[in-house]
This record gives sequence, structure tokens and C-alpha cells, in this order.
Amino acid sequence: MRLPELETPRLVLEAGRMEANVARLKARLAALGVRLRPHVKTCKSFEVARLLMEAPTGPITVSTLKEAEQFLEHGVTDILYAVGIAPGKLDHVRALRDRGADLAIVVDSVEAAQAVAARGEGIPALIEIDCDGHRAGVKPGDAILADIAKALARGAQPRGVMTHAGGSYDCRSTGAIAALAERERAAVVESAAVLRAAGFDSPVVSVGSTPTATFAANLEGVTEVRAGVFVFHDLVMAGLGVCAVDDIALSVLATVIGHQREKGWIVTDAGWMAMSRDRGTGRQAVDQGYGLVCDEAGRVIGDLVVSDANQEHGIVSRRDAGPLDVSRYPVGTRLRILPNHACATGAQHDAYHVVRGGPEVLARWPRFGGW
Amino acid sequence: MRLPELETPRLVLEAGRMEANVARLKARLAALGVRLRPHVKTCKSFEVARLLMEAPTGPITVSTLKEAEQFLEHGVTDILYAVGIAPGKLDHVRALRDRGADLAIVVDSVEAAQAVAARGEGIPALIEIDCDGHRAGVKPGDAILADIAKALARGAQPRGVMTHAGGSYDCRSTGAIAALAERERAAVVESAAVLRAAGFDSPVVSVGSTPTATFAANLEGVTEVRAGVFVFHDLVMAGLGVCAVDDIALSVLATVIGHQREKGWIVTDAGWMAMSRDRGTGRQAVDQGYGLVCDEAGRVIGDLVVSDANQEHGIVSRRDAGPLDVSRYPVGTRLRILPNHACATGAQHDAYHVVRGGPEVLARWPRFGGW
Repeated sequence: MRLPELETPRLVLEAGRMEANVARLKARLAALGVRLRPHVKTCKSFEVARLLMEAPTGPITVSTLKEAEQFLEHGVTDILYAVGIAPGKLDHVRALRDRGADLAIVVDSVEAAQAVAARGEGIPALIEIDCDGHRAGVKPGDAILADIAKALARGAQPRGVMTHAGGSYDCRSTGAIAALAERERAAVVESAAVLRAAGFDSPVVSVGSTPTATFAANLEGVTEVRAGVFVFHDLVMAGLGVCAVDDIALSVLATVIGHQREKGWIVTDAGWMAMSRDRGTGRQAVDQGYGLVCDEAGRVIGDLVVSDANQEHGIVSRRDAGPLDVSRYPVGTRLRILPNHACATGAQHDAYHVVRGGPEVLARWPRFGGW
Repeated sequence: MRLPELETPRLVLEAGRMEANVARLKARLAALGVRLRPHVKTCKSFEVARLLMEAPTGPITVSTLKEAEQFLEHGVTDILYAVGIAPGKLDHVRALRDRGADLAIVVDSVEAAQAVAARGEGIPALIEIDCDGHRAGVKPGDAILADIAKALARGAQPRGVMTHAGGSYDCRSTGAIAALAERERAAVVESAAVLRAAGFDSPVVSVGSTPTATFAANLEGVTEVRAGVFVFHDLVMAGLGVCAVDDIALSVLATVIGHQREKGWIVTDAGWMAMSRDRGTGRQAVDQGYGLVCDEAGRVIGDLVVSDANQEHGIVSRRDAGPLDVSRYPVGTRLRILPNHACATGAQHDAYHVVRGGPEVLARWPRFGGW
């Protein structure tokens, strides 16, 4: 099978770019002396994840128990479910642990810790720290950390602390990302110290976001980094300066289905269902619409973006909405669209079509979704 | 199975609301004397679609050939694929027609018409009309219509005209929607007249969008209406005045996993992966964030919305970001979130969990995605 034979829209994965992205982050983290616990919420594919993991058993980070389940079926056992646990999921957690997963969970309150401990199953749990005010977690170094650990110790297993510097997606410079990386590190190191002072080992001190992993200068006291988007990268990462546009390994293959000549519009069959509704670059200096347009070989065409989208229609035009000779892109022309957000775009598809700098589709790697 | 036993997030469908929505639009269109060719891109479920169709064989509208394929497997044969055809899909179209589908396609240029006709398979094709400047299609009544029909007639089968008043999603009043509905009607009626004057029957004169179908006062000359969202409705439709909030049949069941008390935030396990990234109400008078929050029984709580979302985290807060006593929603509390856009939110899930005004899950109806 070759790209020109694929019915569109389809998700294309450039293996060489992915491998370079993975090697780059692994080298960084090795130099900083920390383990990578890759977040497989981005790829949701065993074929991709095995390029990221240290060993066939992991470690990995997941965002859903479905991911834990799917990877356990492939022999991955060292798993962190990095979303605060809902008590109603604890039966599922137990079932996965009974099947051999060393599945750890996350809490950020005494009430959640009590719900986990009440089961008396010794479930390992990390306490989530809020390093940048963007989501869940307790304040770094807060005295409540010891209360949560005590509550956990009554029937679960306090294993340490974790945080996610999601605010790094809104940084305005790589210097700001580096500063946030240090804040992220300090937040968990300080919190682990509170736990240790209260008599709780904190063997896991976990941080992670692709931007902070890329620009952290020092990860002293941190035991592992969770990152996911780095495997593919995307336009949001390029806009942050975390990668180059030419590092982006994921694209959506599309076909031109028509034009609005006077408007300078090329209409394609890759709408928001294929690209996702993610408009992450809308907040950045360069707004890439629903995606940046490449030719079928993956070369960026210039300033063509998917400026608007319906469910199954993409409107391609110049970023500045200026005139465009659409006759250069006749009906049937194949394009590839780089996505704003690899996690969101990937989730709209059921498989990766793997290429290596040419038109041959070397493999079709399935991916899953759901919960 | 009961709602309190479902692991979250899950998609919930209120059967009674859906049935009322369907009955209301069917009664409207019957009074106006036109057929409904429901757009199954919203539901992507045979169990839902059979409530919409006139007969087990259809008719239906699809947005992908995957939909055509799935519904054909359930015996539906009268199918319009309402996205401009990409020449690379014509083998797939032929395969579906060979298997018994009366599958019609759409073109909006001489070049696309030539590609279809060149196959000599008599494929029926509608010509797309651009009634409101929002997407694809030729201008209403444009002389090129006859050229496209002539090109089609050389090996395909010109069957008429279709348009989609997608601009209705941006109307500011129901009066404006009614005016657009008349413009939509006039666009296809005028275009069909051009074809007839050139000697081409135009047996199909097709319009469709849920807003215009709801407010059209007159559909004279129109043979069928395509609409999809009406089956479930959503917050965008409610914001347009097309439905009431209590008509919305789709919601996402979520669980509270934590809080940020000082901020008045409730954190849930329904992030943008469960809700989709669709922020359609962001352009409306009332911005519903990523969704409007109900209790587990489906009653709107008041002014609580999903004000922000990460992949698997939803941040629930007051719409005005005012103070909120989050202790009323302890960890483990179950909520239901009404979506901005039924098509987008539905697409994030693999099944509907059907309820009827109570906690019992009466059925699990699978839905599909992809192309």
C-alpha cells in the first residue's frame, strides 16, 4: 500500500521523525539522570509505546483505565494512572492489579485517600501537587500532605508525589518554560520533604509535561518524568519553541474536493472530525487554524492553513486570507495537514499509517480510544 | 445496570427526549409536505437511525463512506453521501453500489463531474449549491449548473441539487434563521429551474440543517430535508432558540474526583476527550464552556459549567466564576454534562447508554467512528 492509494482522511505517522523525537528526549533525561515514564495517552498504541519504554514491562503513564487494560494485555505492568481516582473506579483498579499490574493511582484529598484506604488492598498512590494553579492537586509543601499520607497508610500505600506543569502550554518563551520546569521540580521536591519529615518514604517524585521536560535544566530530587506529546510533537509545541515544524511526525492525509475560487478557498475532505476541534494555536503568536498544510510528501507548502472546518470539510486558505491561485490544487490533489494537538487529532482515528520519508505505507498500527 | 454503576465518563441518551425531538421535526416536515432524509452523521448508530427513517431501507444522509457501509450492512439502501466526492473514493462508491446501495454522491464543479462521468457507471449525483457562502457549492442559479449536469450526463446520472445552510449556526435570532431557511429554499429551487431549462430533470431538490428545518415557513419546490442534530439537540441549538435546554437528549456522565476550594472549582473525570474540544457556545450570548452541568438525574443545577478542560479532567465552576461551596459536591458525586455539539461529543464515545427518565440503563447502543 502507498499513500496515494489510501482513502482519505487518514492518519499518517513519519517513523523517522518519531524516532528522532524519542531519541532526543531520552538523551536529555539520561543526561539529567531521571527515568522516563512515557505518557501513552498521546499514542494509545502498543507499537508506538514500545519505542518509548525502558523495558517490555514499562514503565508507562496512562490517562484512563482502558489504557491500563490495553497495555497490560501487551505485558506492560508498571503503570501509573495519572488522573485523580474516582471511587467508582476502584473495583476496576483491583481487577487490573489482580491480573498482575503494579498499577498506582493518584489522590489529592483526605477524602479520596480515605476511600482508597478503606478497601484495605494496599493500592499504591501518589499525592498530586498543584505546581502552577492550572488543575488538580494540593499546594506544594502544604501540611495536608501528611494528613493525606496518613489516611492512605491505613489500607493503601503512599508512594510519593506527582505534578504536571500543564501551564507550560501557555508559556510565552522557552525561558518561561525553563522557569516553570524549575517550579515544577521544586514543588514536588518540597512536597516529598514534607512527607519524609512526617515519616513517609517518598520513593516516587514525578513531574512531567513535554515543554518542561524539554527545557528543564536540573531535575535533582526528581525520580521520573512523564511526557507524552514529544513522541509526535505538534503545532502547539512548535509554537512554544519546543520543536521545529519539521519534527512533527503526525499528519492527516486529505484530498481536495472543490474550490471557491473568488475566495481563495480549497475545500478538502479533512474537517474537524479528522483534525479534532482543537484550536490550541489560536492562543499563540501564529494561529495555524485547524492545521498547517503540506504536500503529499509532507513538505510544508508555505502559509496555507485549514482556516475553517465543518464536520467533514476543511477550508484551506492563506493564513492572511490573501488571494490564492487555487487551480494549482485541482480536485483530487492530496495534501497532508499537521495538527495543532497530537493527542486530540490522534484520538479521532483508529490507526496510524506508518511511512518513512516516502510514499510506501510500511505498517498500519491500530490505536484505541474510550474508557 | 444502573447509571450509578457505570464507570465514568460515559455517554447517556434520554430516550424520551430523543423520541419527542424526532416526533416534533417529523410533524413539522409532514405539515410542510417534504420528506426527511435524516443525517446519520450525528448518531452513527443503527438503533438511533431506525427511529428517524421512513422505512428500513432509508432514506438517509451520510457524511462518510464508512457510514454508508455500516448502514448498508443493516439493510439501508437509499443513501446520499453529502460531501463533495474525492475521485479516489469512487472505487469504494462502486463497491457499495454493487452491493445494492442506491448511493448518490455530490459534486460542485465540472472537473469533479468529469471524474465521476469518466467511470461510465451511471452514478447518481447531486450538484451542491452554496446558499450562504459558508462552504462548498456553486452559486444559486449559476449558468455553470448546466455545464456540470452536461458533464455528469456523459457517464453518470444528474439527479438534482442540494444545499446546506450551515450559516444558520451563526444566526442571531430565530427570525434570521427563518430568513436563511427561505434563502436556502430559494437557492435550490432556482438552481433546479436552471437545470430543467437546460433539459435535465431535477427530481431531487434537497436542503437541510436542523435550525432551518425547524424555522422554515415554506418548503415549496423542495423534495427532502436533511437534518441530523435535531435527534439529540445540544447547547448550541438551545442557544439559537432551536430547542430548549430540557430537550437535549445527550449527556456525559462524570464523577467528581477533587476540588480547588478557594477557587470554587470542582474537578471531574470528564475532560475534553469525553466532551470533545467543541466550544460552539463560545460565540453565543451564553457561553456554556465545555458543557452545562446537571445532577445524575439530568436536572440542570443552575449556573455550573465545565469552564475548562484537560484531556481527562473537567473543571466545573460557576459561569460567572463566582464563589461556590464545593463541599456540596464531594468526591464520588456523579454529574451529567450537556454538550455544546452533539455530533462532536458523540464522536468521542463508542456507545450510548439509554435511559428513560430514571437511573436504569435500558440498553447499550454501539456507535462507530472513522472513515
